[in-house]
Amino acid sequence: MITQSPAKEGAVAAPKGPREVTAELKAEREKFYADLPKYQLGALWNVLDDALTPEPRIRSVPYLWKWSEVRPRVMRAGELVTAKEAERRVLYFLNPGLPPEKISAVGTLYAGIQLILPGEIARTHHHTPAATRFIIEGERAYTTVSGERTLMKKGDYVTTPNWTWHDHGNESDKPMLWLDGLDVPLVTELDAVFFELFVERTGNEVQPVTKPMEDASHRWAKNLRPTYQRHAGKFSPILNYRWDDCRSALQALRDDTGSPFDGIVLEYINPNTGGPSLPTMSAYLQLIRSSEHTKAHRHTASTVYHVAEGRGYSVIGGKRFDWAEGDTFVVPSWSWHEHASDGGEAVLFSFSDRPVLEAFDLIREQPLEAGYQR
Amino acid sequence: MITQSPAKEGAVAAPKGPREVTAELKAEREKFYADLPKYQLGALWNVLDDALTPEPRIRSVPYLWKWSEVRPRVMRAGELVTAKEAERRVLYFLNPGLPPEKISAVGTLYAGIQLILPGEIARTHHHTPAATRFIIEGERAYTTVSGERTLMKKGDYVTTPNWTWHDHGNESDKPMLWLDGLDVPLVTELDAVFFELFVERTGNEVQPVTKPMEDASHRWAKNLRPTYQRHAGKFSPILNYRWDDCRSALQALRDDTGSPFDGIVLEYINPNTGGPSLPTMSAYLQLIRSSEHTKAHRHTASTVYHVAEGRGYSVIGGKRFDWAEGDTFVVPSWSWHEHASDGGEAVLFSFSDRPVLEAFDLIREQPLEAGYQR
Amino acid sequence: MITQSPAKEGAVAAPKGPREVTAELKAEREKFYADLPKYQLGALWNVLDDALTPEPRIRSVPYLWKWSEVRPRVMRAGELVTAKEAERRVLYFLNPGLPPEKISAVGTLYAGIQLILPGEIARTHHHTPAATRFIIEGERAYTTVSGERTLMKKGDYVTTPNWTWHDHGNESDKPMLWLDGLDVPLVTELDAVFFELFVERTGNEVQPVTKPMEDASHRWAKNLRPTYQRHAGKFSPILNYRWDDCRSALQALRDDTGSPFDGIVLEYINPNTGGPSLPTMSAYLQLIRSSEHTKAHRHTASTVYHVAEGRGYSVIGGKRFDWAEGDTFVVPSWSWHEHASDGGEAVLFSFSDRPVLEAFDLIREQPLEAGYQR
Amino acid sequence: MITQSPAKEGAVAAPKGPREVTAELKAEREKFYADLPKYQLGALWNVLDDALTPEPRIRSVPYLWKWSEVRPRVMRAGELVTAKEAERRVLYFLNPGLPPEKISAVGTLYAGIQLILPGEIARTHHHTPAATRFIIEGERAYTTVSGERTLMKKGDYVTTPNWTWHDHGNESDKPMLWLDGLDVPLVTELDAVFFELFVERTGNEVQPVTKPMEDASHRWAKNLRPTYQRHAGKFSPILNYRWDDCRSALQALRDDTGSPFDGIVLEYINPNTGGPSLPTMSAYLQLIRSSEHTKAHRHTASTVYHVAEGRGYSVIGGKRFDWAEGDTFVVPSWSWHEHASDGGEAVLFSFSDRPVLEAFDLIREQPLEAGYQR
Repeated sequence: MITQSPAKEGAVAAPKGPREVTAELKAEREKFYADLPKYQLGALWNVLDDALTPEPRIRSVPYLWKWSEVRPRVMRAGELVTAKEAERRVLYFLNPGLPPEKISAVGTLYAGIQLILPGEIARTHHHTPAATRFIIEGERAYTTVSGERTLMKKGDYVTTPNWTWHDHGNESDKPMLWLDGLDVPLVTELDAVFFELFVERTGNEVQPVTKPMEDASHRWAKNLRPTYQRHAGKFSPILNYRWDDCRSALQALRDDTGSPFDGIVLEYINPNTGGPSLPTMSAYLQLIRSSEHTKAHRHTASTVYHVAEGRGYSVIGGKRFDWAEGDTFVVPSWSWHEHASDGGEAVLFSFSDRPVLEAFDLIREQPLEAGYQR
Repeated sequence: MITQSPAKEGAVAAPKGPREVTAELKAEREKFYADLPKYQLGALWNVLDDALTPEPRIRSVPYLWKWSEVRPRVMRAGELVTAKEAERRVLYFLNPGLPPEKISAVGTLYAGIQLILPGEIARTHHHTPAATRFIIEGERAYTTVSGERTLMKKGDYVTTPNWTWHDHGNESDKPMLWLDGLDVPLVTELDAVFFELFVERTGNEVQPVTKPMEDASHRWAKNLRPTYQRHAGKFSPILNYRWDDCRSALQALRDDTGSPFDGIVLEYINPNTGGPSLPTMSAYLQLIRSSEHTKAHRHTASTVYHVAEGRGYSVIGGKRFDWAEGDTFVVPSWSWHEHASDGGEAVLFSFSDRPVLEAFDLIREQPLEAGYQR
Repeated sequence: MITQSPAKEGAVAAPKGPREVTAELKAEREKFYADLPKYQLGALWNVLDDALTPEPRIRSVPYLWKWSEVRPRVMRAGELVTAKEAERRVLYFLNPGLPPEKISAVGTLYAGIQLILPGEIARTHHHTPAATRFIIEGERAYTTVSGERTLMKKGDYVTTPNWTWHDHGNESDKPMLWLDGLDVPLVTELDAVFFELFVERTGNEVQPVTKPMEDASHRWAKNLRPTYQRHAGKFSPILNYRWDDCRSALQALRDDTGSPFDGIVLEYINPNTGGPSLPTMSAYLQLIRSSEHTKAHRHTASTVYHVAEGRGYSVIGGKRFDWAEGDTFVVPSWSWHEHASDGGEAVLFSFSDRPVLEAFDLIREQPLEAGYQR
Repeated sequence: MITQSPAKEGAVAAPKGPREVTAELKAEREKFYADLPKYQLGALWNVLDDALTPEPRIRSVPYLWKWSEVRPRVMRAGELVTAKEAERRVLYFLNPGLPPEKISAVGTLYAGIQLILPGEIARTHHHTPAATRFIIEGERAYTTVSGERTLMKKGDYVTTPNWTWHDHGNESDKPMLWLDGLDVPLVTELDAVFFELFVERTGNEVQPVTKPMEDASHRWAKNLRPTYQRHAGKFSPILNYRWDDCRSALQALRDDTGSPFDGIVLEYINPNTGGPSLPTMSAYLQLIRSSEHTKAHRHTASTVYHVAEGRGYSVIGGKRFDWAEGDTFVVPSWSWHEHASDGGEAVLFSFSDRPVLEAFDLIREQPLEAGYQR
């Protein structure tokens, strides 16, 4: 039973609230407000305009990290980080609009550059944030995921999904650098970050390699599936989407009209579902053709772009960002953006939190020329 | 082309990083760290332990708001808020573990108590955060969603989904109070909050009522669907899940064994999908039977509980919270919890961000008696 | 290795077949044809026009069974069939266009009228064909499915899905008659008919009643679901869709425009999926309003209609069929049809193999006024 | 209103049917039965044992067509069929257990061998039955589907889905032979066969080639998808599953344990769904390793096998069928079967109506060693 019966409160109904905000009322209110924190209560009418804004109040800002500035620092880190620390030798991108503790390149997305020097290995671990790797430089370093090892090279897109055991090492004589992409800010916000070292579970630092090279490619990537096996999980079973395959598919479609906003753009898919390669992050490879200048649009969903080939520029939120191979830049949610190549074709790799927005009917897109619409 | 060729950097490969952290190295590092912010870069090895924790580092804490403390303040707000301001006359719950600007009761969930005095109305608006209402007190106040009006009474569960036009008013002579639940913290984090007043779009303050009373109940809620119509959107087409129906279903199943952790617990579903009533928030009605004391477990996903009937207590994170009708309490993600009725049956209404975690394979559950497991 | 190498057959390539069908060629062909059956081969060019027709060559014909003719014969069967035989005391509808061994009312659908006299019971059994019952007359006879018993009355729609144990009995003092609908012709064609008596598995003639009355209705039919339980199978968990609920929903929507071809038409759905109540058969309740005369259309999918209320007529394939309560009629696939009420409202129950066609993208619809289109 | 009210019929209830089948009753029954056909009614108790059998009463029988017998006749057909008739120059397999008008190799599956001589073309057409081609002999003949042309060679698996425009031709100087697989018996049974020539719609005999060679392979087959495009339909967008890719995937998995009943078996999948390449027919490539002899099992779903490589035998329904490359054999639903290679590896291509049975929960499997179970 509710202890204060409506009857007792009936008198309250009559006044229907005050007519206007007099000085006296103001004072009473201040007293009232002062009292609320004691009860862990807040007055919505004071914050609603900030909470429910006509359009998203995006804190992330457009930004570009020049490879010519990033790479030397990553290499310098190679000189400063001990072998033991090397499994976390990453310089990550900090969006200038967000507080540093967010560890976010843009919105819900973490991005960083990892360096693996010859001979280095990382111990096997897993975590609930999902990770992707887009290889920038080097070859014959490996990633092992769930017992399968892949040798990576420039342009490969490698997935290390939610809670899969993974490690990596560099058996070549050259450094390997890649772009790391993770959904850490999202999973943190969802209070669901778990991390574990393989050694804590098994006593071994590194998981055994139990599958032959290219196993997932033979098993799941050729539009075939073994009937005697089921791939568990919402993520793609494909470990490594090879650059050569993806780049040539892109080239084969270059005569398509393509997207007015993105040119020829291919999403890496999970062949079990036709959906994104990871449930929280979709990834794309896109061709900005010679002399192509896309139309501007904006959409909810944040994107990290990495220049895989060529040079050009993007106009993001009214500001021009010139880019060249190796650069990384970000387009925050609901920011106008357009892309142009410069002096030839350009290829952009990107990853986005679009699947998260789509899962909840929160994707909204708008071309620049149109007026505001739902 | 990458401008710094690997060849030029070849020398870096040799050292493979330093062996140990000497004082000299420490100094060089400090210099290096001091330089990074200039480039919007961060060193992962300094923050990784904070970013990828063995278990979620939950900032939300368990908390209980006593109705005997909340209701008087809400009623007092009725005296302090002008008629014009009344459409936002809500006292919302602030989790003590979170910064106030989060406007969160727990995790990704907003909750508050709204008061509508006799004669008051709120103007029609819509927003991308989805909302639910669980009616605490009063009757014959209405909510109108997408042209359909429902008269609400105690115990009804009403949905106002993502971007549906809605408004409300109180045509009775008694105040109406309800529990508001929204996914505002999540949608804010996803940079996807949009808000619009109907008057801005149409020039009218209030949308017309275009459908008969109980239209959705007849149209979608009876395990029937009109073949000549399609319900768009991922949310349930049902506007009002009536207390009488839900409470009696609960009663009918009271002899089930039920869940060892939750007793008899029913989820409000979307009959188009069998899934949650809203894509971001699931809602439940649950019966803690007389003398029932559930086993403890924990899971990712945060929950707001509201006591719809009876009294009892929950032990959350090792602390006991006694509750009675009208109280609201929260169980953060990954917090051990168990429930017990006291002196008869108790009915708890709750809502959770579980569908968000499930969408991304981030749900994890653990009974207390078991050791840690995936 | 192929024993006849292409090289050896190279000479065949040259002629590229004869130019025209001479008398000599005809004779050679006849010899060739005479030889083929020996090898269980057929010549496609002789049968293709029959196999791939411009439009479906429907063998089922429109037909109507008058209740005034059917009921006396069913009741007479009550006098001729022994108690032991009573569990199969059904007169089934034979489509005049199909061979009797098809046991089909139309296309893939079986339909018949079952009579249960007071005191009779049928032994528990299950079969892979799914069954439905639409109650025509009587009350307080029961069907038990998977341990749950429901008391049926006029207008109820009851499902006994694929391989669920079921039985029935009549504890009232009046006969009960219902329309049985099954997918036997389809399941037979798929070589997947299984049948078993409960007694063969357990030694007991009748399954125990293990659930309370209306269990499924409380558990699954109120837009709620127990979280501690999962309904297995693609069929609806609802045992009995009650006439009163369905009829009143129909009435509530009578001011809808509805379907131009079907008036106000509701499909019985599976609340776990939003799809049909059974995976092979969808069922509908439809209101032909006073003076309503629907437009003609045709579609693939066959339908059995039963007049639940009122009178009227349908024009099917150009022929008028007058109907009144209790009559059953069929509309074959791809037959033009339209419905009209006569002297008041009429309510038609129907079931269809539409889900089968839809599962394979084989549904095609065409309004009469339009020219032929895909 | 029902004209015969239950009240009037009350007397009938009393007798509750006769006790036993006396001579007199028998005579009355005969009179009754004689009367039923007039009303298009049948007495279920006379046919039920035939309609609902304990296990499926399969009419299709196991059978094997020797390539050494089939090929000469197909080539002979090349000499007998005029150029004009050539687009249907197929010898199809007739299951000995089924009436010839079924045009079925087994159950719902049609299969035949098509011959295209050098220089021949088939006019563009489409039909609702879906078709597959598995190339047996020849190269550089083409199939065009929906504007895309593919050059086929031995071992390729080509889909021509439901209602897609398709044609073919042979521009090489050698004959091409392939195995045709269609769901004609199913679609016929569903009263949904449509067929149309392109010339009837457009005035042109042959559709234009509007897409580059290998377009679908670049566009949909590499675990990528263009974001600016949507593939419509439930069928796979992939036109040609290349032998080299599929055979090498099979080889790569040869060290798997595989299926005890089928060895290493890969299903051709639709990368949009992870499901079968066609909604009504799944297709497989399977490796019977050297000296492998699979365990026997049976399942609902019928299968057509074609020997792509090697030799061996299958025991089907207790009878041994020896096979070599080019042979085709069938395993009816619910027939025990096991496979063995002979003198090396063997590769079997097969297609099945399994997706149809799965869609309706009608798949049932049983290993031979186990007793009967659900």
